[in-house]
Amino acid sequence: MNEAGFIAALKRSAGSRPRELTLGIGDDCAIYSPPGSKTDLLFTTDLLVEEVHFRRSHPPAAVGHKALARGLSDIAAMGGEPEFCLLSLALPEWADARWHAGFRRGFFALARRARVALAGGDLARAEKLACDIVVCGRVPRGQALRRDRARAGDAIYVSGLLGGSALGLETGAGAAWKRHLRPEPRLRLGRFLRQRLKATAAMDLSDGLSLDLHRLSLASGVSARLDRPLPVFPGATLGHALHGGEDYELLFTLPPRAKPPEFFEGLPITRIGAIEPGRPGRVEFFGRPLEPLGWDHFRRGES
Amino acid sequence: MNEAGFIAALKRSAGSRPRELTLGIGDDCAIYSPPGSKTDLLFTTDLLVEEVHFRRSHPPAAVGHKALARGLSDIAAMGGEPEFCLLSLALPEWADARWHAGFRRGFFALARRARVALAGGDLARAEKLACDIVVCGRVPRGQALRRDRARAGDAIYVSGLLGGSALGLETGAGAAWKRHLRPEPRLRLGRFLRQRLKATAAMDLSDGLSLDLHRLSLASGVSARLDRPLPVFPGATLGHALHGGEDYELLFTLPPRAKPPEFFEGLPITRIGAIEPGRPGRVEFFGRPLEPLGWDHFRRGES
Repeated sequence: MNEAGFIAALKRSAGSRPRELTLGIGDDCAIYSPPGSKTDLLFTTDLLVEEVHFRRSHPPAAVGHKALARGLSDIAAMGGEPEFCLLSLALPEWADARWHAGFRRGFFALARRARVALAGGDLARAEKLACDIVVCGRVPRGQALRRDRARAGDAIYVSGLLGGSALGLETGAGAAWKRHLRPEPRLRLGRFLRQRLKATAAMDLSDGLSLDLHRLSLASGVSARLDRPLPVFPGATLGHALHGGEDYELLFTLPPRAKPPEFFEGLPITRIGAIEPGRPGRVEFFGRPLEPLGWDHFRRGES
Repeated sequence: MNEAGFIAALKRSAGSRPRELTLGIGDDCAIYSPPGSKTDLLFTTDLLVEEVHFRRSHPPAAVGHKALARGLSDIAAMGGEPEFCLLSLALPEWADARWHAGFRRGFFALARRARVALAGGDLARAEKLACDIVVCGRVPRGQALRRDRARAGDAIYVSGLLGGSALGLETGAGAAWKRHLRPEPRLRLGRFLRQRLKATAAMDLSDGLSLDLHRLSLASGVSARLDRPLPVFPGATLGHALHGGEDYELLFTLPPRAKPPEFFEGLPITRIGAIEPGRPGRVEFFGRPLEPLGWDHFRRGES
């Protein structure tokens, strides 16, 4: 069973949603609309597991940073403002007081910058370190960016440069390694997409462009065509850029005649293709079908 | 460093709360008050880790049940109505399709009874199974039961019978074992405490009466005196009842002249002592100081 299969099984059992739960399983965040409020709340949860998402040898501050960055990236993808987070930590013996202090330093440095408060959590002992982060964000009622709203004719864009994180994971050195260790959640860009550019759909690139664009197209019931040069991270291959995970850039669609800036606060904004009518989830790369080879947490585990 | 020390370190770094975050780290749930709404939202997160909270040999349906029950118990403790939950699962190779199906069966049977929808989650591979559950509940604005509101003169009560879960963990048999595997979150009792009995303070008994009552007294800035027979689970020792974890009964305080029923829907309600002025956190059991020997996740891990 792959990840999509397992999620489908959960989804079938998930039961009827309360009216306030505007959006359930399947997007970067769930959306909860508190009664009487003009605000929608966004919720996302992200696991970080030793030897899956990071190694014991990684700087603890980078682990703390990434634990939170992954959740914040989901809030960014929906155009939200982070409010608070919850942190569950399963801590092994090897993580000593110095490791804990480093983890907290990385975690809270990002928390302060993103103005997100730690509201609670849970602690346990374990053999391997595992960390689950929940982030709650807010957005004006009905205005969250979703992945299921792309329309035929929309142009497809990505922020930043792709493949850097996958390259860094391979080389363990230089700018790419720094990119892998300390991804930057695109919170301000997400709000800009919602408020100014009126993006039709958005999601974050956590599992690789080929898989994530497949998911966006599937959710929106459309096909996608990639027919322009990708903004590839210096030194990365096209394979890294197409299939590498953990870039945490934003993938989004704009109406055909939208004129986004070339850069947003120094970050390149690149048009890479267009949404088309066609089989939902189908992605074409310069005229050929593109397999969704990005990171499937289960397929990788089973190999 | 023990659990309290680690939490204190997190709390110091937690940063300033947004105004809407009415209650942060330290109670069963955080409280978020959405702007413009008459509802407060409760948030709790609970980790369940293989070989810490359960074993591979346990029935998967019981693991699924307990994963959710722990979170629901925190919502019950604050008098809330569960709304939705998020589930993060780190799944090892040994958990096959049959195990998954069993887990889902136990999880969703309780979810349906408690009317809580699964709104999202995250999946990863791992060597040991770990599961983090977040539950969001709701309560009318300002009415959540908290652990920091007990006052000198209040009477102390517990629901149900204590020590059954600890006994079950030892014996692996009979009613106590069932109790250990399938704790029942006291959601209806929690709402009754809030709406009818006007409890001054409440929390759930997850780590043992001695430690949890110490925490309630510490949070409320008062002492506690236990001077009446405890409702001990049949076959359990006084040690089980005082220090055993995972009973998931409710511990609460009522104004001195309150007259609660002897039973609530068949569940015994027992007066076990009184709140007194005195050193915050001090607990006395029949005239002698009671050490908080309950379950500290870190101390146990370090032994």
